[in-house]
Amino acid sequence: MKLMKRKYRKLGLPPGTLVHIGEKKTETVKITIIDYTEKEFQEKEVTTIEEAFPFRDTSTVTWINIDGVHNTEMIEKIGKHFALHPLLLEDIAHTEQRPKMEDFKEYIFVVLKMLYYDENGAEIIVEQVSLILGKNFVISFQEREGDVFNPIRERIRGAKGRIRKMEADYLAYAFIDAIVDHYFLILEKVAERIENLENELVSRPTSETLRAIHNLKREMIFLRRSVWPLREVISGLGRSESVLIKKSTELYLRDVYDHTIQVIDTVESFRDMVSGMLDTYLSSISNKMNEVMKVLTIIATIFIPLTFIAGIYGMNFQFMPELGWRWGYFTILCVMALIVIGMVIYFKKKNWL
Amino acid sequence: MKLMKRKYRKLGLPPGTLVHIGEKKTETVKITIIDYTEKEFQEKEVTTIEEAFPFRDTSTVTWINIDGVHNTEMIEKIGKHFALHPLLLEDIAHTEQRPKMEDFKEYIFVVLKMLYYDENGAEIIVEQVSLILGKNFVISFQEREGDVFNPIRERIRGAKGRIRKMEADYLAYAFIDAIVDHYFLILEKVAERIENLENELVSRPTSETLRAIHNLKREMIFLRRSVWPLREVISGLGRSESVLIKKSTELYLRDVYDHTIQVIDTVESFRDMVSGMLDTYLSSISNKMNEVMKVLTIIATIFIPLTFIAGIYGMNFQFMPELGWRWGYFTILCVMALIVIGMVIYFKKKNWL
Amino acid sequence: MKLMKRKYRKLGLPPGTLVHIGEKKTETVKITIIDYTEKEFQEKEVTTIEEAFPFRDTSTVTWINIDGVHNTEMIEKIGKHFALHPLLLEDIAHTEQRPKMEDFKEYIFVVLKMLYYDENGAEIIVEQVSLILGKNFVISFQEREGDVFNPIRERIRGAKGRIRKMEADYLAYAFIDAIVDHYFLILEKVAERIENLENELVSRPTSETLRAIHNLKREMIFLRRSVWPLREVISGLGRSESVLIKKSTELYLRDVYDHTIQVIDTVESFRDMVSGMLDTYLSSISNKMNEVMKVLTIIATIFIPLTFIAGIYGMNFQFMPELGWRWGYFTILCVMALIVIGMVIYFKKKNWL
Amino acid sequence: MKLMKRKYRKLGLPPGTLVHIGEKKTETVKITIIDYTEKEFQEKEVTTIEEAFPFRDTSTVTWINIDGVHNTEMIEKIGKHFALHPLLLEDIAHTEQRPKMEDFKEYIFVVLKMLYYDENGAEIIVEQVSLILGKNFVISFQEREGDVFNPIRERIRGAKGRIRKMEADYLAYAFIDAIVDHYFLILEKVAERIENLENELVSRPTSETLRAIHNLKREMIFLRRSVWPLREVISGLGRSESVLIKKSTELYLRDVYDHTIQVIDTVESFRDMVSGMLDTYLSSISNKMNEVMKVLTIIATIFIPLTFIAGIYGMNFQFMPELGWRWGYFTILCVMALIVIGMVIYFKKKNWL
Amino acid sequence: MKLMKRKYRKLGLPPGTLVHIGEKKTETVKITIIDYTEKEFQEKEVTTIEEAFPFRDTSTVTWINIDGVHNTEMIEKIGKHFALHPLLLEDIAHTEQRPKMEDFKEYIFVVLKMLYYDENGAEIIVEQVSLILGKNFVISFQEREGDVFNPIRERIRGAKGRIRKMEADYLAYAFIDAIVDHYFLILEKVAERIENLENELVSRPTSETLRAIHNLKREMIFLRRSVWPLREVISGLGRSESVLIKKSTELYLRDVYDHTIQVIDTVESFRDMVSGMLDTYLSSISNKMNEVMKVLTIIATIFIPLTFIAGIYGMNFQFMPELGWRWGYFTILCVMALIVIGMVIYFKKKNWL
Repeated sequence: MKLMKRKYRKLGLPPGTLVHIGEKKTETVKITIIDYTEKEFQEKEVTTIEEAFPFRDTSTVTWINIDGVHNTEMIEKIGKHFALHPLLLEDIAHTEQRPKMEDFKEYIFVVLKMLYYDENGAEIIVEQVSLILGKNFVISFQEREGDVFNPIRERIRGAKGRIRKMEADYLAYAFIDAIVDHYFLILEKVAERIENLENELVSRPTSETLRAIHNLKREMIFLRRSVWPLREVISGLGRSESVLIKKSTELYLRDVYDHTIQVIDTVESFRDMVSGMLDTYLSSISNKMNEVMKVLTIIATIFIPLTFIAGIYGMNFQFMPELGWRWGYFTILCVMALIVIGMVIYFKKKNWL
Repeated sequence: MKLMKRKYRKLGLPPGTLVHIGEKKTETVKITIIDYTEKEFQEKEVTTIEEAFPFRDTSTVTWINIDGVHNTEMIEKIGKHFALHPLLLEDIAHTEQRPKMEDFKEYIFVVLKMLYYDENGAEIIVEQVSLILGKNFVISFQEREGDVFNPIRERIRGAKGRIRKMEADYLAYAFIDAIVDHYFLILEKVAERIENLENELVSRPTSETLRAIHNLKREMIFLRRSVWPLREVISGLGRSESVLIKKSTELYLRDVYDHTIQVIDTVESFRDMVSGMLDTYLSSISNKMNEVMKVLTIIATIFIPLTFIAGIYGMNFQFMPELGWRWGYFTILCVMALIVIGMVIYFKKKNWL
Repeated sequence: MKLMKRKYRKLGLPPGTLVHIGEKKTETVKITIIDYTEKEFQEKEVTTIEEAFPFRDTSTVTWINIDGVHNTEMIEKIGKHFALHPLLLEDIAHTEQRPKMEDFKEYIFVVLKMLYYDENGAEIIVEQVSLILGKNFVISFQEREGDVFNPIRERIRGAKGRIRKMEADYLAYAFIDAIVDHYFLILEKVAERIENLENELVSRPTSETLRAIHNLKREMIFLRRSVWPLREVISGLGRSESVLIKKSTELYLRDVYDHTIQVIDTVESFRDMVSGMLDTYLSSISNKMNEVMKVLTIIATIFIPLTFIAGIYGMNFQFMPELGWRWGYFTILCVMALIVIGMVIYFKKKNWL
Repeated sequence: MKLMKRKYRKLGLPPGTLVHIGEKKTETVKITIIDYTEKEFQEKEVTTIEEAFPFRDTSTVTWINIDGVHNTEMIEKIGKHFALHPLLLEDIAHTEQRPKMEDFKEYIFVVLKMLYYDENGAEIIVEQVSLILGKNFVISFQEREGDVFNPIRERIRGAKGRIRKMEADYLAYAFIDAIVDHYFLILEKVAERIENLENELVSRPTSETLRAIHNLKREMIFLRRSVWPLREVISGLGRSESVLIKKSTELYLRDVYDHTIQVIDTVESFRDMVSGMLDTYLSSISNKMNEVMKVLTIIATIFIPLTFIAGIYGMNFQFMPELGWRWGYFTILCVMALIVIGMVIYFKKKNWL
Repeated sequence: MKLMKRKYRKLGLPPGTLVHIGEKKTETVKITIIDYTEKEFQEKEVTTIEEAFPFRDTSTVTWINIDGVHNTEMIEKIGKHFALHPLLLEDIAHTEQRPKMEDFKEYIFVVLKMLYYDENGAEIIVEQVSLILGKNFVISFQEREGDVFNPIRERIRGAKGRIRKMEADYLAYAFIDAIVDHYFLILEKVAERIENLENELVSRPTSETLRAIHNLKREMIFLRRSVWPLREVISGLGRSESVLIKKSTELYLRDVYDHTIQVIDTVESFRDMVSGMLDTYLSSISNKMNEVMKVLTIIATIFIPLTFIAGIYGMNFQFMPELGWRWGYFTILCVMALIVIGMVIYFKKKNWL
């Protein structure tokens, strides 16, 4: 997870200049068109964007999906045909946008972040999804071919649910709903990692645990940044007075808004937990060190005085009366045993044993 | 306490699809109907939901209570008969909702969280309670048969308090009041645990204490998430301009709102306390380690030099004049005693003894 | 300081049921009546509440003071006579309310918290004071006979200040002012304790200090909860459009509002300080441990190598040439002295001595 | 820096009673009058406040400056002559006010805090400055003779800047500006102390450093409390619709408002820094302890095994074959050397050397 | 990075006095004029400011750029000619302003902070940029000759983008956009440093790491102070109802506002990360100390008892039966070996090895 994508290539260019910023996640750009009314349905994959243009003026609902945003030339063509603002086009190509919603009267522009774990399940990948909701069409831009929108595709094909009966704004809502629903998957995996770490935390914390907590903390900061602005985006859509958003869709937007709040709530709770884990870790380490210290102290405190006594009678003075005593050796062994017993009692009393 | 319930089974389904999400807490679904006016009273348990439908159109107040939300078919039937929005039905079956209030004009939908400790008193269990307040009826959905609403049932049966004189909105209020009142029980138990831990904390902190603090902290995060949204829910009901909420009930809603604020206040105070406990724990552990280190240092500092002196006169050099002295041994013993006395004075001055 | 008062006895009772919750702080209930205009003054102690009822309808200002709120029967009688809402009566008897202000049109209800230290000055005691401000009367409920309102009594008796010239709302203000002024006394004592602890903190921190900081922290959480809602209460009174609050009193309310803000400010500052103290404590303990470790390390580092050398020449090998040398013993003593000097120089350089 | 000034002497007195609270910072009260228009200028020091009264009704701008607020009798006289509210007079004498602004229609009352370091530069002293802005006059109350207003005096005398051309509200602004500008001096000194501490912090932290950080932290809390309310005061003046504030002065108030925000910003930054310093301190101490521990461990780990080996051959068993070997002694010395070399390599690998 | 620039030289001067505060970053003041319409273009460098004055009244768009703000005399001349408010001129010369926007009706005044790393890339340098947007002109003040505005200069020269077609407000927007874009460069470098530190953090933390974290933390506080006010500045420009800001420019301002929010978001995330790093550092150090302690304890715990046993048989008592045994020596060696094995098993079980 890179902290930032390099942006400086753009520095100094006039605003509205189309430059792709971000990792190129797919080689070719794939364009698919789905066109439907309640009765009719048509789906095709085209190779040039121009083939999609005629659909703008039909009365059917048209979904133009574009996988890959590095082809700035094509984005420019779309911009020209659909009369989109150059700053909007720039935002599509520049994949480090913050989630946002802008109402351009003729169309509404929405930027969202899709999150998924990479193949190893080790790192969260972020993909920018841009939506343009016009009168009868939705254009969606993804950074690479994804499967999050497949269920929607299926529902349109199979005329499942109410999607075929609704207009373009419901389609846009369906995309947002799919993305927000996907966040729960991420949260579940994070929850699992938190629970695993918590078990490890109090019982046997290692420096590996510390690294894991630190990474988790970082991911939380990251997640937070992706989901917080979403609230504003969706409530903005709901409160928008645009004619593009039908009254009947508002209830659905309220529902996805509730889900967003739930995602945010969960992220915040996780953040609190992870932050508490570091404190617990530190306490746990101190605890362990205390244990280690006690063992050392007990051993040292018992044997150092004994060794000293042994040292006394190891001295080579010519006049040491005890050395000649018959029971000197056994006496001294007994004294030592008494010292050990005394020490053990002392430690018991101090609760160290 | 699971961090999250698995939700992914739902991923990709169209919004408004009825899927039960959550643990199935009861096997069979139990439906009870209570129907009353100030004068009349009728109570029965039915086996099919259809038996409850006629009550919709009577002018009496009807309370339909459903224990168990995993029977999505039945929820669907209710939805059809009472003309409820599909998204609402989805929320009833999906038991991981955030507390919320939605005004659908014809009826008001409220989701609440009931909290109780499990049998062992070790873990907080959350149950989702959904209420639908219509013109003359309240439908309540619980995840399992509970006893929190029993006192209300008793009051209706016995015509105690003003409940039989009031309308359906007061009944809905009574449910909310019962749930919020129940929170105080939870808070009391948490308070008790905090007090026990605090005693343990400064005097004899163990790694068990740490685990307990950590768990408490987690529970606080959890509790907080359940009670915070409640504020908005209840103030929303109070401020709602729905005709379903009578003027006279508003004062009662204000009262339960005050209780909610008090619950939130208490949770926040507890959170502050628990968070402070971890710091105190760490300090306490450091304190103990300091004690241990002092004992070690005192012992080592006294005996290591003495052992060295004994070592000197244990050397086997042929020419060591002291060894031949008549009082050498006793002299050296005196020197050692003096060193011990000097050390003790030094430690006294350093406040280590 | 109990974290929570037991409330569960009330669980399940219908709202508006009068149950005394809290410690019974006085045995008998004392009722005193003070009735005055600018010219006239009358004061009496009555035994039954009924004797106070005639004063409701006089045009003089009447202050009915009731010490003890466990007599729910009496509260009920007052409620009936003065036409008070049952929820209000419940709040009076239930002494774990949050400070609040409610405008019931005919009268205004205010709940406040009086704070004082117990006899030993060790713990903060909270007492709930409820005020009912009507057209010509103020009814005050205290948990036990207190002396905070005595100066007001004196001012009324002696016609000092402007109190006798003003109406019932000024009297209510005087109560609030007296209570808020009393908070400063608490804050002073807390300030004193903080200062004492701070002196102890850096110089000679013990586990007693830790306990004291922890208690202080807890008290701060507690204090905060009592004073924060006050702000809303008093600003609510000031902004209220009730005819019960005269224009001329508003300036006084603004003044007591300023004092409240000052109390809150001070509590927040104290909180910050106490919270900083725990960090300082931990640092201080670490510091001390560092000192202890240094002593141990110096002693061990000097004497362990010397003891080893002595050990070498204590070995009983038959062929150890040094043992037979004439100056062997003295040479070895010199070597040891050199090692000591070297070590001391090393420690000096490391700034450990 | 006392945490709180004793206030309890006032407890129980009716509101509006004049009692001086605070340290008496000057013995005698000094009254100076400056009266000017663009053309004329007059300055005199008077001994009784009555001499200042005629200036109230002249059309010239009059500045009455009073150094010393313990003479409550005099404040009362001023109150009577200028028809000031008793609560306002109380606030002047009670020097523990929070900065505030009150618009009494006929006049505006402003309380500010002047901060300066004591002679030793060790402690921040707070002085309360109260301003009364009337139609043609400003009355300023200081706790003692100060030099912060001297430059203003000079500008009036010398007719420098635009002060002589402006009215009384500009004069009041000039006072506020002078006080806020003075805060920067305090901040600079604090900045210097922070920088000195930071150098000390990472390199050679002592318990003196800890004490200094703790004091700084406390001062920050203190500073914050003085400057935060200022924002409201000045923005209140700017937004006030009083006729006493001329349109032309508003721009100047906006400027001093900007400065206040800058002061607050800086204080907050400092607070963040000081708070971070304690964490760094703790880390630094732990670091040092680690160093100490390593030295101890290295010495102990090398010499304890060697001493043990020497101990073995110091035993007096009659049958110890090695003792009789010709090269036993040298062999054993070699073995010891090898052990030392092994240990050193091990520590090198562990990065402890 | 100095915490504060000395300001006290200004203390006592009347407001609106022109004094340069800050480091003099350039010796001479350089004045360049660019004057253009869509068709025409003129660029020249002048030596006296008076040469720039005629451009005020032309209908072309004029950009007067001044590098160096220490020449207060010149600023005064500009102020006179363009009728600027003296407080504004003061703000230009006083380079420690907070970013702000002020609408003076005839012109809009904007203060911004330009950030760049010094040549060594070790420290963030702040430069104040002031903009005055008038009807047909923009005057920009920089502290020294910079290259951030060069791309804009190039675009005007080359008539690239839409800048030549737009009016003065677009030019002002272009400056703000250039500055905000430049922040991303700073953020990238900070991100790099954070990533480097994080690698160092868990694996091999040294006191150098601590210093680096501390510095980073300080820089974050600093950055934050520079970017937060920007939000208000730009949203202020967008919402301003000034005729100087054209409708068409508002969309561009919204775009740069989005960028600002992104900068702030990133700074906040970095802050969170850096703050977490200190905690991780402390944990990591504790971890390492634990390792060290374990090594010491293992060595000491194994060898101290063995040394004691050797000491026993090094005593010189005449009657020690074991000394005469044939296999005494070997027996004792075996006993020692068994102790070692026992210890190792114990440590294995305790997970210390």
